[in-house]
Amino acid sequence: MFAADCQARVAFDLLAGTWNAVVLHTLRTGPQRPAELRARIGGISPKVLHETLRRLEFSGLLERRAYAAAPPRVEYGLTELGRSLLGPIEAMATWAYAHADEVLAAQERGEASA
Amino acid sequence: MFAADCQARVAFDLLAGTWNAVVLHTLRTGPQRPAELRARIGGISPKVLHETLRRLEFSGLLERRAYAAAPPRVEYGLTELGRSLLGPIEAMATWAYAHADEVLAAQERGEASA
Repeated sequence: MFAADCQARVAFDLLAGTWNAVVLHTLRTGPQRPAELRARIGGISPKVLHETLRRLEFSGLLERRAYAAAPPRVEYGLTELGRSLLGPIEAMATWAYAHADEVLAAQERGEASA
Repeated sequence: MFAADCQARVAFDLLAGTWNAVVLHTLRTGPQRPAELRARIGGISPKVLHETLRRLEFSGLLERRAYAAAPPRVEYGLTELGRSLLGPIEAMATWAYAHADEVLAAQERGEASA
């Protein structure tokens, strides 16, 4: 099922940048302005958020809407393609909540015996 | 649900290395020797496979078994923790088969208009 150049790698590469999944997940409730996203996502800088939004837009997962207001207003929202990725992201997050501590404990044991 | 230092990031970081998911998935049928894994996974070098196996072992997802034979034989197999990650990996791979082409098409359009 897996080969070096196969489609599955597209999905894992998409979620390789940790912030990609976090931004997609945070937009599940609807389009938001960058400032709103930053308030909801702890620890992301304006620069990293901007790069993540552009990367996800470039991959067809987000769409950018600009409103002619003073000052101009921009919102980002999930495309249908982006919304379809929320399921696998949820599966990963659910696994993480159940097992992240076991992974971290194994890594600590590994460091201690290194 | 997501914050900068939350557990979900452990999961996405684990699958950030594209080969991690491919190796875990290939081991779903049972323990295998590195040579068998390389034969099943197209495009992975011995060095990258070795690093991936050690990284997954370090995270508690794989276990390494050495057999006293001549020459010595080594196998890698999924731990229970590793097997529990196959579900989310399948969800990602299934999404990729359905949508990877749409992502690649969006990226090509983006490059064309850049």
